[in-house]
Amino acid sequence: MNDTNLSAKLNCPISSGEYEKILIAHGGGGILSHDLITKLIQPQFSNEYLDVMHDSAVFGINKQRFAFTTDSYVVKPIFFPGGDIGKLSVYGTVNDLVCAGAKPLYISVAFIIEEGFPIEDFKKVIASMREAAEFARVKIITGDTKVVEKGKGDQIFINTSGIGLVYDEVNISPKNLAIGDKIILSGKIAEHGIAIMSSRESLEFETKIVSDAAPLNGLVEEVFKVTKNIHVMRDPTRGGIASALNEIVKSAKKEIVIDELNIPISEEVKGACEILGFDPLYIANEGKLLICLPRSESEKVLGVIKNHPMGRDAQIIGEVTDQNSVRVLMKTIIGTKRIIDMISGEQLPRIC
Amino acid sequence: MNDTNLSAKLNCPISSGEYEKILIAHGGGGILSHDLITKLIQPQFSNEYLDVMHDSAVFGINKQRFAFTTDSYVVKPIFFPGGDIGKLSVYGTVNDLVCAGAKPLYISVAFIIEEGFPIEDFKKVIASMREAAEFARVKIITGDTKVVEKGKGDQIFINTSGIGLVYDEVNISPKNLAIGDKIILSGKIAEHGIAIMSSRESLEFETKIVSDAAPLNGLVEEVFKVTKNIHVMRDPTRGGIASALNEIVKSAKKEIVIDELNIPISEEVKGACEILGFDPLYIANEGKLLICLPRSESEKVLGVIKNHPMGRDAQIIGEVTDQNSVRVLMKTIIGTKRIIDMISGEQLPRIC
Repeated sequence: MNDTNLSAKLNCPISSGEYEKILIAHGGGGILSHDLITKLIQPQFSNEYLDVMHDSAVFGINKQRFAFTTDSYVVKPIFFPGGDIGKLSVYGTVNDLVCAGAKPLYISVAFIIEEGFPIEDFKKVIASMREAAEFARVKIITGDTKVVEKGKGDQIFINTSGIGLVYDEVNISPKNLAIGDKIILSGKIAEHGIAIMSSRESLEFETKIVSDAAPLNGLVEEVFKVTKNIHVMRDPTRGGIASALNEIVKSAKKEIVIDELNIPISEEVKGACEILGFDPLYIANEGKLLICLPRSESEKVLGVIKNHPMGRDAQIIGEVTDQNSVRVLMKTIIGTKRIIDMISGEQLPRIC
Repeated sequence: MNDTNLSAKLNCPISSGEYEKILIAHGGGGILSHDLITKLIQPQFSNEYLDVMHDSAVFGINKQRFAFTTDSYVVKPIFFPGGDIGKLSVYGTVNDLVCAGAKPLYISVAFIIEEGFPIEDFKKVIASMREAAEFARVKIITGDTKVVEKGKGDQIFINTSGIGLVYDEVNISPKNLAIGDKIILSGKIAEHGIAIMSSRESLEFETKIVSDAAPLNGLVEEVFKVTKNIHVMRDPTRGGIASALNEIVKSAKKEIVIDELNIPISEEVKGACEILGFDPLYIANEGKLLICLPRSESEKVLGVIKNHPMGRDAQIIGEVTDQNSVRVLMKTIIGTKRIIDMISGEQLPRIC
């Protein structure tokens, strides 16, 4: 039993397979989500594409590789500092394609709208999606609209699915993760989650904390200009960088050590996390990228990222160790090491 | 002003653009849905792919054409005679790809689950999706799961998006519709809608009416073996064959006349429609196909369809006239002609 499983046992005595009802935490991006997916859903649908268990599936047709992804957005509130559900739904799906090493091309959009939702708000959401699609250089080419009775939905839910072309020579897979690989984080963490939370609780901080929602394809295009030798990419959304790194080590069967001192975070977000009692490692980001790549490529790629407007605060935050364990460790500021587990539950429901 | 618009004005004095809130009817597949899509959504997202306004978008990469579609399923109840939301979500997306002349390949699935939804029911839904995917010969390759609080959803909503390869030499578009084209309907109408409705109202008929939910790719493969010369295909779901035919004439700027006598319908469904006060032309189907094709191909294709287990009750139900109007007419059993309009509202909310 590895440490993550041990912690799961401690935090949550009944495995999710034994729950009788769906809990909010089953959608939280932590252990319960992971269990629901790996114990119930994936065994049913199992095939060579799905079993890769990446945010995007990759398939080939006539020697061309495609990435395909889907995400539903149920964020609450639908308008928040720095963005809205529409923008989020476009950028989120763009970023899932990016993390498969693909250039995003086409997006579908499906609305589930609650009866009584103001048309003015709907107009704002779709205008925001249009702007987001233009900014991210993708086309929304097909869609669907459903309406449910008042009290059977919550204003508006949006699903976007996306198709992209995987770059030639790019091969993203946790299986490629190698000892000595460096981990780059493209910018400051926890801004999306804290923006949502402060808006939900009507908290005011000295500086307004805004969501980092942004498309990452421009940034990654620049990286691919200097190297195709990238092992893993993840956008650390639900569950934050802690959950994303845990998913990487689980798939790769490796140990990662990160250095607390090098993790970019703003003073405002750090302060807000203290007030709210949240660990920023577990808070959602919507415009940040984790890149695992060979040590030999790391300084060059870091330079490229820091030159991009979306990567100015990028840092090398850690590396893959030669230890024979499957876990994420963090060197703390005071010099100790602690295990960064997956959380079982849900710090912030409906964050995306 | 054409007849359809006239009728819209009569049925619904305020155009949907002037509504302040989303109504149930905005999701009903009738005039309000159509207005919401064409007046609000499509102008924002406008591009050469979306503007075709088909159920699937078609795009080309390296001389290969792809179809891409999305649909959210909010059917109530989620288990009904002849199917469930899972089966429906797979077949519905398969059929949207089929109607673009494509061979369905890959499906994504995104769940929005209400907190408290029984895990046993969830297991049933995903098992049903697996079976449906196997039966329809498509692979579910990527997914997403979100959970919303009790009272902010309704058990489970499912989005499926799909990707297919458009058959070589096949070119499906309402623009191809030509005077003299025949309209084939692949089987009996209104079974899905009436199955849902009778289950919702706990009605019992002498013979149990079950949903016709079924994938149409097998049937259409057989058709393409004998001809690629098909002008339009539509699966008449929400809004029934009346709405599907109206959408075809609107896009094609043509008149279609159908013959009531030739429309396949079971005695049970006809009886149920009478009891419930529904017009079966407007009731959803989930395993039926409308095919518009040159007269010269029609008997051959009808033969192929009637030979397929899903097309035994197929009929030629009408044709494209040489009249310079944009409408659907029906020769009634008593010999008169009546206009088959799009409905403004919603006979059966949450039918799919």
